[in-house]
Amino acid sequence: MAEGTRFASEIPEDKLVECFVSEDYLKTDPDLSVFGYDTEPVEVSSAVFGKMSDTDNPQGILCVCRQDQHDLNDFLSKRKGAVRLLVLEGIQDPGNLGTMIRTAEGAGFDAVIADENTVDAYNPKVIRSTMGSIFRVPFISVSDLPGTVEQLKNAGITVYAAHLDGKRNYREEEYGDRIAFLIGNEGNGLSEEITKKADILVKIPMQGKLESLNAAIAAALLMYR
Amino acid sequence: MAEGTRFASEIPEDKLVECFVSEDYLKTDPDLSVFGYDTEPVEVSSAVFGKMSDTDNPQGILCVCRQDQHDLNDFLSKRKGAVRLLVLEGIQDPGNLGTMIRTAEGAGFDAVIADENTVDAYNPKVIRSTMGSIFRVPFISVSDLPGTVEQLKNAGITVYAAHLDGKRNYREEEYGDRIAFLIGNEGNGLSEEITKKADILVKIPMQGKLESLNAAIAAALLMYR
Repeated sequence: MAEGTRFASEIPEDKLVECFVSEDYLKTDPDLSVFGYDTEPVEVSSAVFGKMSDTDNPQGILCVCRQDQHDLNDFLSKRKGAVRLLVLEGIQDPGNLGTMIRTAEGAGFDAVIADENTVDAYNPKVIRSTMGSIFRVPFISVSDLPGTVEQLKNAGITVYAAHLDGKRNYREEEYGDRIAFLIGNEGNGLSEEITKKADILVKIPMQGKLESLNAAIAAALLMYR
Repeated sequence: MAEGTRFASEIPEDKLVECFVSEDYLKTDPDLSVFGYDTEPVEVSSAVFGKMSDTDNPQGILCVCRQDQHDLNDFLSKRKGAVRLLVLEGIQDPGNLGTMIRTAEGAGFDAVIADENTVDAYNPKVIRSTMGSIFRVPFISVSDLPGTVEQLKNAGITVYAAHLDGKRNYREEEYGDRIAFLIGNEGNGLSEEITKKADILVKIPMQGKLESLNAAIAAALLMYR
């Protein structure tokens, strides 16, 4: 479910299932043709739209979209050259997940992989925080994260974990062209099982008395590096 | 207002005004002496605590603290050597502001300055997102941001603006030891008036079709660079 004018205009045509607009939105005489959809928008009363919307102050346009389904095996079989992956374990905050997908696009990462303990990527708050990147960055949900990390390593991908115990400064590392960054849960970081499977633990230096950085900030610093 | 066990333990003693605990919290037999407060906590029923708390699932401890008051003139008069500042215009999202204050501590920045259109730094959501950094990073609210930027420049501080029109890649810039980074509103970026006053516009390169990065991500990339 994607809400708002900007978002609606970013939906690839083959992904659109249905579009709803409120009567108040239609009163603003919007140019619905800019969306270029074959599908005719369904008009609903503003009261009904308020119930459908996930936000307190809805803009008045809401689209139901097809979810992309990506399979890790397929994905890896097509990526024999350079590949950059962000791999998430147990991210709980929708804003963090959405921001990570958005930043992944900006940093030129090829996909975001997450375990089943990570918040649903199709949660409306996640979708909003991606600012449209959810339509462009492949998101791959995996049920067996330890197995996935093994699979990445077998595919010649060097797996880095962002970890407070990391001895190597992330800025001084020489990164190859097939890499994955592991980022863990906001409160607890990466599990021991996953940390052990990483090839290299890197640390983001911190001054002051901070225990950790926000997970999306840590992911951004690594991806942009 | 600072909630939760971890937060309560980070409050400097001279900042504490009052501490409230719920009856359920007391049943867990918490060691309240770790907080080292002279002030005796006030016990309230869990129903009352639920109303006092800003969260849906309160931990059961809530402290009222004195706000720090920092004056920019005082601050600058004491910082004649190296100084690093984050300067914000119209940041609206409490999570973004809190995360920026937290990241500023990690990156070793000396203060965060914000205009009056920025969300209140003492909003409970901001406080939570700082993870305690609000007690350690001076936060300076200013009413005249254009005047403040002039004041910084007059104090020999080079003012960089993160801007989509920036021609210079933030990674290739040589930064001196007296610098400030300007970050603008999530939706609109920096105002034209403030942008014009900056010494140098820097750009964070983006791949894909992204229009911008999240404001807290942009701030983090600049501060860590």
